[in-house]
Amino acid sequence: MNDVLQQLDVILAARRSASPDSSYVASLHHRGLNKILEKVGEEATEVILAAKDASGDRSEVIGEVADLWFHTLVMLSHLELDSAAVLDCLGERFGMSGLDEKAARV
Amino acid sequence: MNDVLQQLDVILAARRSASPDSSYVASLHHRGLNKILEKVGEEATEVILAAKDASGDRSEVIGEVADLWFHTLVMLSHLELDSAAVLDCLGERFGMSGLDEKAARV
Amino acid sequence: MNDVLQQLDVILAARRSASPDSSYVASLHHRGLNKILEKVGEEATEVILAAKDASGDRSEVIGEVADLWFHTLVMLSHLELDSAAVLDCLGERFGMSGLDEKAARV
Amino acid sequence: MNDVLQQLDVILAARRSASPDSSYVASLHHRGLNKILEKVGEEATEVILAAKDASGDRSEVIGEVADLWFHTLVMLSHLELDSAAVLDCLGERFGMSGLDEKAARV
Repeated sequence: MNDVLQQLDVILAARRSASPDSSYVASLHHRGLNKILEKVGEEATEVILAAKDASGDRSEVIGEVADLWFHTLVMLSHLELDSAAVLDCLGERFGMSGLDEKAARV
Repeated sequence: MNDVLQQLDVILAARRSASPDSSYVASLHHRGLNKILEKVGEEATEVILAAKDASGDRSEVIGEVADLWFHTLVMLSHLELDSAAVLDCLGERFGMSGLDEKAARV
Repeated sequence: MNDVLQQLDVILAARRSASPDSSYVASLHHRGLNKILEKVGEEATEVILAAKDASGDRSEVIGEVADLWFHTLVMLSHLELDSAAVLDCLGERFGMSGLDEKAARV
Repeated sequence: MNDVLQQLDVILAARRSASPDSSYVASLHHRGLNKILEKVGEEATEVILAAKDASGDRSEVIGEVADLWFHTLVMLSHLELDSAAVLDCLGERFGMSGLDEKAARV
């Protein structure tokens, strides 16, 4: 429970069942999967535009990737999934076993 | 250097300057930013489609989010950025300071 | 039956029931709605990239918009819809009645 | 000057130089290319979602494709291009020459 993504998983899971008025994420869950996926599509476009404009200051790109990842985390949470499964998947593809990964985190 | 994203940052940085024939990522870097952004757009669409189809088995969604994150990491690497900046940005937005985050990782 | 979009509607409708080997469009229909929507997403990304790069020669943008419209026409055809309904919708929003539009086409 | 797309080209060209307060399109031009491309990306996502949900009523898909085409027309107008070039491009790819097309429109 010691990194940003894991903390976000916990926060987002709590907001899934919260009142729609209580936060932006709770309102997204209330509006449903299509609304969340619209946000994923929007943020992907904004990442692309920021990357095309990234000749000078690159902080814009960082912020847009953060927004994109954030909304994919909300989507995963909406489907009762979380970032751990994504990291495991990435780890497996790159020859880092789930077990080693867990061990490495200790 | 203890989690999947950090390991990926290192792997991707090494492939940025590798021969285009040596790996998929090296070939993406060689083909340039537009090609990498096309992949980001494609993977975002595949995430959306997998989420819409996620009524039964949800493993497809996990794999598509992994693909999307992976290609955003390649894009960051192409711009000489990495996942650490994205995680810092997410941490700041959620009230986890970069310092605490670093400390927590130890 | 006298303009490009109407002619395309007719061509695309014929290809919907053709053998998958007979043409690109027939193969898209055979591979199904998700494959067609992946192409719509890809072409939208390519439009965005071409527009960002359109400082000099703008013919690239034209070609990418043609690709995007083309794949939305294939999608409409897959759902047994066609361009006429889209043009009627655009006409209504801009205060050109369907009847006037039809009259104007004669 | 006898169909919806041609009429839209004329309307959109006029709005390009109009005051930002005077219409939605004029405000988009004022906000610039990135804002227009964000809308193209958003509408592409909405087309995909509407198509996935199109099992019963299909009018939603028609409206979303109209929105997508509309915003690509605004983008073309922003770049001082118009729908005629797109239709010519589609015509050429499908073996209808620009001349024949023009003749057919008479």
